[in-house]
Formats: sequence, C-alpha cells, structure tokens
Amino acid sequence: MPGSLPAYQPGQPDFSILRLGHIEYLVTDLERSRDFYVDVIGLFETERDADHVYLRAIEDREHHSVVLTRDKAPGIGHFSFRVSCEEDLNRLAHRFESLGLPIRWMQPGEERGQGRALRVQDPFGFPVEYYSQMEPAPWLLQQYHLHRHGCPTRLDHLNVLMPDAQAGFDWYTRELGFYCAEYTAARAPDDRVWASWLYRKSTVHDIAVMTGRGPSVHHAGFSLMEPMGVIRACDALGSAGYANNIERGPARHGISNALFVYVRDPDGNRFELYTGDYLTIDRDQPPMRWELDDLRRQSLWGAPPPRRWFEESMTVHDIRGGRMQPLADPAIHAIPSYVE
Amino acid sequence: MPGSLPAYQPGQPDFSILRLGHIEYLVTDLERSRDFYVDVIGLFETERDADHVYLRAIEDREHHSVVLTRDKAPGIGHFSFRVSCEEDLNRLAHRFESLGLPIRWMQPGEERGQGRALRVQDPFGFPVEYYSQMEPAPWLLQQYHLHRHGCPTRLDHLNVLMPDAQAGFDWYTRELGFYCAEYTAARAPDDRVWASWLYRKSTVHDIAVMTGRGPSVHHAGFSLMEPMGVIRACDALGSAGYANNIERGPARHGISNALFVYVRDPDGNRFELYTGDYLTIDRDQPPMRWELDDLRRQSLWGAPPPRRWFEESMTVHDIRGGRMQPLADPAIHAIPSYVE
Amino acid sequence: MPGSLPAYQPGQPDFSILRLGHIEYLVTDLERSRDFYVDVIGLFETERDADHVYLRAIEDREHHSVVLTRDKAPGIGHFSFRVSCEEDLNRLAHRFESLGLPIRWMQPGEERGQGRALRVQDPFGFPVEYYSQMEPAPWLLQQYHLHRHGCPTRLDHLNVLMPDAQAGFDWYTRELGFYCAEYTAARAPDDRVWASWLYRKSTVHDIAVMTGRGPSVHHAGFSLMEPMGVIRACDALGSAGYANNIERGPARHGISNALFVYVRDPDGNRFELYTGDYLTIDRDQPPMRWELDDLRRQSLWGAPPPRRWFEESMTVHDIRGGRMQPLADPAIHAIPSYVE
Amino acid sequence: MPGSLPAYQPGQPDFSILRLGHIEYLVTDLERSRDFYVDVIGLFETERDADHVYLRAIEDREHHSVVLTRDKAPGIGHFSFRVSCEEDLNRLAHRFESLGLPIRWMQPGEERGQGRALRVQDPFGFPVEYYSQMEPAPWLLQQYHLHRHGCPTRLDHLNVLMPDAQAGFDWYTRELGFYCAEYTAARAPDDRVWASWLYRKSTVHDIAVMTGRGPSVHHAGFSLMEPMGVIRACDALGSAGYANNIERGPARHGISNALFVYVRDPDGNRFELYTGDYLTIDRDQPPMRWELDDLRRQSLWGAPPPRRWFEESMTVHDIRGGRMQPLADPAIHAIPSYVE
Repeated sequence: MPGSLPAYQPGQPDFSILRLGHIEYLVTDLERSRDFYVDVIGLFETERDADHVYLRAIEDREHHSVVLTRDKAPGIGHFSFRVSCEEDLNRLAHRFESLGLPIRWMQPGEERGQGRALRVQDPFGFPVEYYSQMEPAPWLLQQYHLHRHGCPTRLDHLNVLMPDAQAGFDWYTRELGFYCAEYTAARAPDDRVWASWLYRKSTVHDIAVMTGRGPSVHHAGFSLMEPMGVIRACDALGSAGYANNIERGPARHGISNALFVYVRDPDGNRFELYTGDYLTIDRDQPPMRWELDDLRRQSLWGAPPPRRWFEESMTVHDIRGGRMQPLADPAIHAIPSYVE
Repeated sequence: MPGSLPAYQPGQPDFSILRLGHIEYLVTDLERSRDFYVDVIGLFETERDADHVYLRAIEDREHHSVVLTRDKAPGIGHFSFRVSCEEDLNRLAHRFESLGLPIRWMQPGEERGQGRALRVQDPFGFPVEYYSQMEPAPWLLQQYHLHRHGCPTRLDHLNVLMPDAQAGFDWYTRELGFYCAEYTAARAPDDRVWASWLYRKSTVHDIAVMTGRGPSVHHAGFSLMEPMGVIRACDALGSAGYANNIERGPARHGISNALFVYVRDPDGNRFELYTGDYLTIDRDQPPMRWELDDLRRQSLWGAPPPRRWFEESMTVHDIRGGRMQPLADPAIHAIPSYVE
Repeated sequence: MPGSLPAYQPGQPDFSILRLGHIEYLVTDLERSRDFYVDVIGLFETERDADHVYLRAIEDREHHSVVLTRDKAPGIGHFSFRVSCEEDLNRLAHRFESLGLPIRWMQPGEERGQGRALRVQDPFGFPVEYYSQMEPAPWLLQQYHLHRHGCPTRLDHLNVLMPDAQAGFDWYTRELGFYCAEYTAARAPDDRVWASWLYRKSTVHDIAVMTGRGPSVHHAGFSLMEPMGVIRACDALGSAGYANNIERGPARHGISNALFVYVRDPDGNRFELYTGDYLTIDRDQPPMRWELDDLRRQSLWGAPPPRRWFEESMTVHDIRGGRMQPLADPAIHAIPSYVE
Repeated sequence: MPGSLPAYQPGQPDFSILRLGHIEYLVTDLERSRDFYVDVIGLFETERDADHVYLRAIEDREHHSVVLTRDKAPGIGHFSFRVSCEEDLNRLAHRFESLGLPIRWMQPGEERGQGRALRVQDPFGFPVEYYSQMEPAPWLLQQYHLHRHGCPTRLDHLNVLMPDAQAGFDWYTRELGFYCAEYTAARAPDDRVWASWLYRKSTVHDIAVMTGRGPSVHHAGFSLMEPMGVIRACDALGSAGYANNIERGPARHGISNALFVYVRDPDGNRFELYTGDYLTIDRDQPPMRWELDDLRRQSLWGAPPPRRWFEESMTVHDIRGGRMQPLADPAIHAIPSYVE
C-alpha cells in the first residue's frame, strides 16, 4: 500500500509537543450541555464557574480535557497541546512571532487549573493553545462504580479541515515535529496529501488534517475503554432521547482501525467515540497510504458516511476576540466519489 | 403503549408446535455458500451430500437448523417447525387437508437426519414443514476452541411478508396457537395489525409476519452469544471481502430490543445476526404496541433502514415442484414514512 | 454423557407453575443493603416502606423480583413461584393441605404489589409462596441511560440445599411438573441424584436442588445482559469497597455453561451474577449427566470453589413466625473430592 | 498515594531504547507448543525451521515477537529490546564492555528475519538482545476473519525477578533511560523499591522488576484487543483441554489496572494475557506508589494469587552457551503477607 507520498522528514524543533491537551466547546445552554456530556456520555465534572464547565475523562490526571463555554453560537473556542516544559512555551512564542502570527499569553488560572499558557492563531487560522502545567485531579480510572455508559478514557485526537491539507501536513511534520501514521493521497494526477493522521504521543494521531472548508474542526475523538463502550454509548444516547444525535456509525474505519460512532452534542458540535486503534511506537514505520476513493479507507465496514458528515464542521474562534474565523473553500475535491 | 389492537385469543389446537426448526436456503454455488456460512459466519457443518450442506449452530443438539441446497436461483426451499410428537403430524395433516391445502409426506431420511415429516403449502403460500424427530448431533456450545467470529447460537426466528398481515396474525394465533409479544398497528384509520411478532418458544418470536409483497421471507434471525458477536461478525465480513454484504446495522431495534446486523449471503439471501432480546415467559403479558411511523420501532438508534431492506425479500418454493410461488402486492402501505 | 439416572417422569399436576418469581432477603441494615443492591449491583427500586425495599431487574414487568426485609439476622424470608392463574392457587393449597403441610394465605397487598398469594412450608421445610397476579411496573429494558454496572436482567433461578436431594428431585419433577436439564449423579455405588437443575420456564433452571445441610438456600441467580456484565460487576464491587464480597469467580461452570461470579451482600447473603446459559425448549431432551467428582462440572475453567462456598448457605424462615428452620445434615458426602 | 520512594532521575544515555521486542521461549515439544500458541492462544506463525517457530501478534509489523525454540528443558533463551538505530547497538556494546559484561554479536539472519543484533548478559545475569532492524511481515490487525479466541495484539511487557529489585530499578532508570509508572515500596523500615513498572514506550511498562529468586523471568505479558478477549481465551483454553494451565485470574490488578489471566504453556512457561492498562504519555507524572501488603495492589478484585505464582519462575540462558543461569535468593521478603 505504500506509495511515493508523503516524502516527509519530521522536523527537529527546539520545543517538544507531548500530546493533544484539551478542547473548548462553545455551547448555548451550559446546563443542558453539562448534563449531556456527564450523564449520557460519561465525562466527569472537575469544576465549574458561571460560564464554564471543566470536564475530564477517566484516564486524565489533570484538571480538564474538555471545557464547555457558554456562548451565543456553537463552535470551538480553542484547542491545546501540552508541551514538555515551561521554556518550550517561550520557544513557541518566539517562533510564532517570527512568523508574524498573533499570540496571546494566558496567565496562570486564567483558564481554570492551568498554568501560564500561550495562545496563538496558527498559519491556517486555528486558535491553538500550548501549556505545560495543569493542576492534578483525582484519577477516575479505577473508580469503576462511577463509570457510566460509553465511559471515555481520554481526549485522543482532533480532526481539522483546511483548504490546503498538504500545507497542514508540512506544517505539523516539519515545523512542529509530528510523525505521520497514515495518509490519504489526493486523486491522481494531483501529487498531494489529501489528509494525514499525525502524532506526537504513540497513538495513531493527536491531530488529523483533512482537505475541506476551513479553518474548522471536524471532530474531537475520545477513546473508550472497550468496544462494547460504543454500543453502550449508542444505547444510552438512544434511550436518553438523543438517537438523532448519532450521526454516523457504529462502523469501523480502515484508517486507524477505529470502531467508531460520531455524535452531535445538543448544539450540533461533533465528537467521535471510538476504540480499536493501535500504538505507534516505531516512528520509522512508513506511513500507511490510502487512496481517496477507496471506500475501505472510510469504512472497513458500515454504511457510507452521510453527506453532512463531509459538509459540516465547527467554526473556530479568533484568539483576539469572540469572532469566528472566516472559512475558505478547498482548491481540490473535498468529498470522495463514494458519497451519495 | 398498549392500544385496542390486537384483540386476540390464542387458539387451543390439538397439536403443539414447539419452536421454529430449520430453514432451507437455495444457493447457486454450494461450495462458496458453505465457506461463507461456515468460515465467515460461524455455523458448523454436520453433513453434506451432492446437492445439500446441513449446518447447525452451537446450541443445536440436532442434525441441522440450516440446509443449503444447490439450485438455479436463490430463495427459500422451505422452513420448518418442530412439534411435540409424531401424532401431532397427523393432526396437522388432517387440518391442512380439511382446508383443501396441499400436503406432502416426507419419509424418514428424505431430508437427511430427519424423521417422518409433513410439508404443506400454508394458506398464504408458504412451504412449511412440520417434524418431531431429528437425529442428535454433538453439542458445540462448550467447544469454545472451535467457535468463530459472530458465532450464532441458534436459528431463532423467521420474518415473513404477506399482503394481508392481519390474516397471518389471525392464522398463527387462532389456528396454530402462537402468542403475540409485540405488534405494529397500521396507520389510522386502518384498524389492522401491520406486523406481529409471534412465539411458541419463550423468546420474542418464532415468526414475525409483516405487511409486504408475498408470500416471501424477509430474513431468518440467528441469535449470537453476546453483543460483541455483532461487531466481530461485521469485522470478519469486512476483512473477508463481504463488507458490501452488510445491508443494515449494527443498530438496535425498538421492537424486540435486538442489537442487530442484516447480512446478505453471496446469493443475496438475507439473514439477521442479533442479540439482546428478552424472554417471554408470562404469556398473559399484553402485546406491546408500536405505531408504524414511529422510527424507534425500527431503530432505537441507528441509521434508518435502506429502501431495499423494505423492498427486497426471498421468494419461496411450491412444495409440489421447483417453481417459485407467485407474489402479490399488499393492499395497504408497506413502507413506513421515515424511509427515504 | 447420559447415564441410567435420573429415571424421571414429569408429573401432570392440575396447576401450572410458570417460573420462579421473587426472593426475600433478610438484611440487618436496610439502607446499606438498598444502596448495595441498587448502586453497586444495578437493581432498581420500585417502592419501599418502613421495613422493606422492593426491587426489580430490567426485564421485569412487575412490581418486584427481590424484597429486602429488615430483620435481626440475614437469611431468606421466602421465595416464590408464579402460577398461571388464580385457580391454581386453590389447587396448590388443596394439595399441600392433603399432605398435612402448613399453609398461609397472603391477602392482596399484604406483600406490596402482589395479589392473593399462598405461602406454604414445603415437605423439606422451605418457605415457598405461590402467586398469580402482581402490579405491573415500568419496563427498564430499554432505559439504557439508567443501567448500571453488571445490570441484572432478571431473577433467573434459585439453588437450594437439602439433606436428600433425590427426594427434592422427585418432588419437583413428579409433584410440581418440573423438567430436568442437567443433573449430577452421586458417587457410585449410590444410585442417587446428587443435584439436579430443574425448570418450568425455558432456561436451564428455575431451581437447582443440591445435596447439603438444609433446608437452606445456597444462592439466587441473576442473569446479566452480556458476559462483560460479569467483569463490570466485579469492577464496580472492587472499587466500591466490596472486593472481599466476591466469593468465587469469574469462571465458567460446566453445568449450565454459565459464566459466573458469586457475591455476598453486606450481610453475607449470597447471589450469583451470570450469563451464558442456554434455552431449554425441547423438554424431551434427555438430561445431561455429570459425575460428582468431575471438576469440569463445577468449573469448565477457573479456580476450584473455596470450601466455604460448599459449607455456608442461607437459613430460611418458618412461615408461621420469624423463627429460622432447623438444619439437618445430609446422609451422603456433600463436598466433591476436588475441593481443597 | 505518592510516597518518598523512588527518588529517581531517568538517565540520558547516548542510545535510545524504543520498546520491548521479542522473547524466546524454550520448549520441549516444538509441534505441541506451536499448536498451543497458534490454535488456542491466537498468535500467528511467520516462519519456522527445524528448531524454531517464529510467531507474531496482530499489531506486529515485523517478523516476530515470540520465538519458540526446541530445547531439553523449558525456560527463556533471551529477550530483546528494539533500539532506534544501528549506531545505538555500537554504543550499547561499548557500554556493556566497559562494565566488563559478556557481549555477543548476532549476524543478520542468525536469528531469522533480524538484522545485526547485540546480545549481552546484563549485570543481573539476564540474556538481553538489542536490535534495530527486522524484516517486515504482513499486518494482521485488519485480517479479522483470521483472528482467534483471545487474539493477542502485541508482546507488551516482561516481568522479571532479581534478588535486589532496587538495583534493577536503578539500572533501568539511570543507565538505560527507563521511566517509572508505578512501584511497590518494601515493607518499612526497608527504604527500598520492592518492585517497579518501567517503560520506554508509552504504556505502563516494557519491563517490571520484582524482588525474587533470580535472575528469572516471571512472565511475558501480551495485550489483548478487548476485555472479552480474556474470557474468550479462558473458554478456548478450557475446552481445548488446558483448563489446568490457567494459573490465576481472571481478575484485575490494582497496579497497571490490567484485567488479566496468567497461563502456563504445555511446558510450564508462563505468560499473561491482559487488557485495560493506560497510556503513559506524561513522563513527568510521579510514579504511583503501592504498599507491598496492600492486597488491592495485586488484586483490585479476584482471588489472592496462589503461592506458586510467587514461587515459580522461568530460568534464563547464559548467552555464552546453553547453560541456565544460576539463581540467588533475595535478601528481603519476596512474598506479600496476604498470600496464604
């Protein structure tokens, strides 16, 4: 399956990104969203204030991996990566400033539980935060009597859309030191990466970059403890009145081998619950190549994705204020041939 | 949820039907079908001859619950019910003859492993067999090292289509002594049963009778050992090259509570693999009523059924020869409003 | 595996027992027990009064299948079978009176939610109740968002000890019309049934009768939705502080094929959580025979049962007052050779 | 739960160990062992020659993670770690030689499928191999129709015994750059590490070092795809005639959170099948501390380990010939107080 793409050489930046950290979902009814994520999905509340609820999953040992923020419209406030040390933040700030990109320092506690952090608007318009310290929180992994339904273990990855996914691939691998586990080649004769699954921690991805209208976030992915978690999550969603919020699945991706279900929260924000991916320990392993129009890429089995799964995604904040980033269309085809 | 329908009084016939027995699938390539049902689906071969393969599931203690028969076109040769004793066969023959319906006696061994049996063409045109004795076969329930993939435990039920499903309901309950676990009421002002789930053994059904073009068989249902069997069956189908044979699911029915997947065999014959239904021990329990256009009836969660799931079904043999029974259209709407 | 035992002919009584109904556990701290059975085990509270909590499982459609009753010491208040109609109660009363056994009529509502019922002290000293009517309760099977941990589906069976288990076998089959799914033969040259698994509903048993110090109840068995429920139950017990209440398992019985775990409640009352048994539809199927000292009988795999699993059981009430029934020792060996 | 131990500072060696690579089991009947590991356990055969069978698990992308070698007695021939590059091998050779320890170069292909490799006898007497290159082998992760029973995904870790586990902890962390996820403190007033779980890849461990008679290997641990795999493995072992080879479990460790079963192969070699541990991405996370006599450490729930689980382990080869390394007893208590 390996082809000529992608010819990539992971960069050796002077900072070290460890993993995806957390995501901020904008919600219009904080209480309703809190109940959805906690009572039905199985996340746990660490803390809340007037406009935010801070949530974590059962493998989390720090304050939060999800922030629900009250806003006028849904979308993504920011997402974050954890770096190895405080000094990395300065190095990252230096790099972003040298590229003429907006940065903003977050003071310790400005985001609850979090130390000093750096927010940037990346070259593609995404509101990205880097942090190294966060308050510890009680570990819930072995508190089985509190586990509910699908029971997410961690925020595993983010999947984002941008008009030029090859540029996103280059940025993450060369500038930020990400490795590539799998990728989708654009339809010939386009000699381009159509999508890539990129990692710092040893799973299939911390972030996937796909061709599409962007900058936008397609979904955040939460891993579950076991495959039955996918069924239990669907059962709980169905009986709690959220059957229509199940957008796609259960089915299995060829890419990443994930057994998945995609869910919309009460505001329409999308996330994935999945299990079944593999460890990426050997970073010299050549990336697995998939062809765009290979249906097995999307679905080793299961119904083809509905069109809205391709067409709809979450807009993102400008870090300099509450406005949403404008969207641009991709130059190349953004929807595979097998979508009806 | 109980409504005015169905006003039913189970009959007290002078024979006792115990349960659904077996089904005969007509297949065009016997070897290919055998490999599909054994290697991918997880049934076990008891015996074969030139034109038949006899299969059983792991709870079966007798010779077969599935017969694959070589034929020119797919479809259903016959299906059978086990009765409590030899004498019941005579009583059934008498009843069918008194109704002027065709009968045919099968000699012991004419169908491998089976004692004397009665085949009839029932009032709706279905080729039904009644038998009381079948050779025992080794029990595979505790031969775990031989179990594969989805691992069906038993042939649990049959789902058939006929133009007038109320008549089918009346026949099975009044004449044959079946009980009703759940039913779907036709759209008002039709005061009719649109579909019913009818049982003799203590599960939700041995046979379901739905409104549709018939006489035809929509599917046979095999129960699995556990819900993960549904996922494992899909994984095995997907990797063995049968991803497109998964027609619908995994999803959960409101009716019967089944977690299911519908599969087409290499000839297009349909069956269901499912788990999660319940026992029907208290026969005086009022049948559960569902409205035809209630999506939860079909899918507590999961994508709506594809149109072909409603429009396609398996034709059945005339017991007096190899011809297929002609089909008739139903008088009332056969497809719910939520099907696209 | 079939041997010469048991030569049994199910009786044809003039009443029809449908299934095991409910069990009354005596507990010394009602609140603590309620929390244990509801929050950790996953039963649901239907109703309570000063001295009782009425519980049901998710398949139950009636008021209760478990009663927790405040008492000075643990044990079993009574257990019950549902019969097919009110008239059956009179027939049973007549039969017990003709045998000179104590009976007591329970007025409607005397046990919450239940119609008129008959309590008897059976020939072996057990406090047995027969009833035909109980108030319906909301069905929780499809209320998945409320399910917790192991999530019992129903009270499936009872396992009792008596000094002469052959006599118990004879009573249940000949007098009460039970069928035998499996049995254990006593060590040669004893020509006796050492234990038997007896059913009216179509599962492996409603009641098992084992040789031992009695009359006493060894355990009640609750079926779970799926095998992972056994693991989830253990995890919840372990993290909620009840690791030591797990007495035996997870392991798999040869008899009944159950994947099981045995649990003691906070008072030491014992129950089993299990999954994986099979349907007993063909009542003419010869009972499966097991030898007493065959370890696979008890454990297809898993550690041998601890000695206390054999030696300890729950005493039972006298229906004429709050005294416990005296115990008698069995005449034959009550503990298999493989127990350390 | 964190205590004063261990005061550890991971070293910064000039080589980079990536992960545990493979293990060589010595077996007395090659064919019997091959059938056991392939047909019952679910590993896959890549290649064999007269005296070896090379096996891999479904996540493996290289030639083997297990070697079965014909020998006169069971035990461990060697185990190996993968390093990041060829040059690391030279650096490791230099280091071991400077410590006066035996080394031996393995030529490419001397172990089938493997490039040039370094074998050493480490300071504690273990036969350890380092390699950087191995031939790729087809990936079986998505060949679901070939998966069997427990279906191991990868060789995850090794658990070794040595008389002075504090010295082993120091060696692995300071000299080899391992991180510590969890540890057991010796009983007070001993200010020592009794056992430690040490990792290079981001799981709980690549190697655990425990106090005991050594040098010896307690077990190799294979991860499974899902918790039901533990049950399916037991069922397959039980029905294939290996019920007595299940030594301990299923149960759940407090340490590592693993749901596990310990199995002996036909020669008595031990391995663990497990699922449920967690990712160790944040290497600055303080190690979790457990007290030796805390039963939850060993068993969050489940029966206490049998005494032989503590007393028996696998001897290891001298790399300079076929002799087994002599064993020495630990200076401190090697068996927790809760073992009967």
